[in-house]
Amino acid sequence: MARISQAEFAQLAHEHVPFVGMLGIQVESLEAGKASIRIPFREDFIRPGGTVSGPVQMALADIVMYAVVLSLIGRVELAVTTNLTCNFLRRPKPVDLIGRGQILKLGKRLAVGEVLLYSDGDPEPVAHVTCTYSIPPTTQEPIAISPSPPTPLPQAGEGSE
Amino acid sequence: MARISQAEFAQLAHEHVPFVGMLGIQVESLEAGKASIRIPFREDFIRPGGTVSGPVQMALADIVMYAVVLSLIGRVELAVTTNLTCNFLRRPKPVDLIGRGQILKLGKRLAVGEVLLYSDGDPEPVAHVTCTYSIPPTTQEPIAISPSPPTPLPQAGEGSE
Amino acid sequence: MARISQAEFAQLAHEHVPFVGMLGIQVESLEAGKASIRIPFREDFIRPGGTVSGPVQMALADIVMYAVVLSLIGRVELAVTTNLTCNFLRRPKPVDLIGRGQILKLGKRLAVGEVLLYSDGDPEPVAHVTCTYSIPPTTQEPIAISPSPPTPLPQAGEGSE
Amino acid sequence: MARISQAEFAQLAHEHVPFVGMLGIQVESLEAGKASIRIPFREDFIRPGGTVSGPVQMALADIVMYAVVLSLIGRVELAVTTNLTCNFLRRPKPVDLIGRGQILKLGKRLAVGEVLLYSDGDPEPVAHVTCTYSIPPTTQEPIAISPSPPTPLPQAGEGSE
Repeated sequence: MARISQAEFAQLAHEHVPFVGMLGIQVESLEAGKASIRIPFREDFIRPGGTVSGPVQMALADIVMYAVVLSLIGRVELAVTTNLTCNFLRRPKPVDLIGRGQILKLGKRLAVGEVLLYSDGDPEPVAHVTCTYSIPPTTQEPIAISPSPPTPLPQAGEGSE
Repeated sequence: MARISQAEFAQLAHEHVPFVGMLGIQVESLEAGKASIRIPFREDFIRPGGTVSGPVQMALADIVMYAVVLSLIGRVELAVTTNLTCNFLRRPKPVDLIGRGQILKLGKRLAVGEVLLYSDGDPEPVAHVTCTYSIPPTTQEPIAISPSPPTPLPQAGEGSE
Repeated sequence: MARISQAEFAQLAHEHVPFVGMLGIQVESLEAGKASIRIPFREDFIRPGGTVSGPVQMALADIVMYAVVLSLIGRVELAVTTNLTCNFLRRPKPVDLIGRGQILKLGKRLAVGEVLLYSDGDPEPVAHVTCTYSIPPTTQEPIAISPSPPTPLPQAGEGSE
Repeated sequence: MARISQAEFAQLAHEHVPFVGMLGIQVESLEAGKASIRIPFREDFIRPGGTVSGPVQMALADIVMYAVVLSLIGRVELAVTTNLTCNFLRRPKPVDLIGRGQILKLGKRLAVGEVLLYSDGDPEPVAHVTCTYSIPPTTQEPIAISPSPPTPLPQAGEGSE
């Protein structure tokens, strides 16, 4: 079970991180070590080319990873991002943006996870993000998570880019 | 000389990238291959811990790099970020955030640069960002820039972390 | 079907990239858009702490991604890495190291993939790598691949870090 | 003054990290918070295209950053890389490869630095690397370093790419 509830995290995000709250995020699911968050589309997210801008994508990835980490260590507001690496893969469509994150490693001092971002309704990710959080020393013992299964590989087939 | 003027870039950023424009960016300088942009402090940029949130920092870095690239290739709105890697180094103070970017490599298809972010008045960077832009094939020949000099190394001494 | 055979890739790696060939890599599987490669353990891979050194891990990830890319575009030796980001998650054990890679995006000019590295026999990854290759303009049309399925998330449970 | 001497670090690298030692590294300079290391050219470093392979470049960057960190915290062999991000900028020439690193942030738990790699005799960097090391808790207090000066920006001018 997650150490922070979906409702509690949503409130935390909106009240305590106003800039991110402004994005109108909706926490779709939150379990121990994984989270899914949606940003409803807004016209002012567009950048030249008619695509959702990179900063909106990175903001979503960061808040998804924050949810993933808090789901495992509880409400530790001082956990901070130390590294975020984003590979932008495809131009997002002008629709809702969805971020799905999972933990890769939860250590005593660092948590590493990955987040895939999707345009609503499209199975191909628009961005891949890895993110590291630094966990303050005083944090309680995190809850145990099972080993990550090997990531399944995509099938070659009739699909197209 | 830059291929886009400071005023023209500021207007482009505000009108065509509303989300970034919302940040109230001020283009402080823009030359061929380098740019400096300021985000005036606002209360709603704060995250738990009293520090400017990561997404605001990454949004600034991205727009700085966009300015750096357009300074070399002109107004090519379809240039898009393909990779952004941010190392968060120190908690920013609740003051203006300043991003200073420079080109590392301008190729025909990819431009790579680095951006250092500073809290106004503090010589130590709060974040280091590398950023890659993909340049559309139809772009005119970029202007030549001289080789980057070796980055000078910091001095060991009496300072403190 | 892959555009380069397992045997052909293994020969290419050993003959044409001697430094990587020195690692004694064994191509375990190669399909369109995915690859698995093993490096048999050697004492001289150890770094202080009794763990396989980071450079060996990154060399494996790079060659795995090279295999993934060539499986889709055929024998294009001039494809080159433009970005490699490695998050080291756990200390590898002094055993064989296995890299499993998959394509995230195959474009006309850039290919992005991710590679997870494992100590043989351990289900938890020791490193996560994202890697971008630049594809030369003259390359033939790449074969189509199906959309990547959403990465499954790890289960919370009785496991431990 | 550095907390580890140039000779001591060179010996450590050769004896305790055999794979890296195999590269024949030569420590050119080592001061508190900065290091320069050379890898003499060898034919077997070449990859298709006649260029020094990416893994050799990343191995050099990693050992340079290890030197930078040990110069500040002394001989702490258990310091480990947690993240390495490499942007490959230009094809290295078939000559010696030189890595110059500097600290960006030395904290109690993490050290972040950047390394630029050069082909001997060429002022343009062939790769830019950022690297994070995790520092074991028991380490003695690191020596103080002064704030990094702002990185100077390259000059626009008559040069060429």
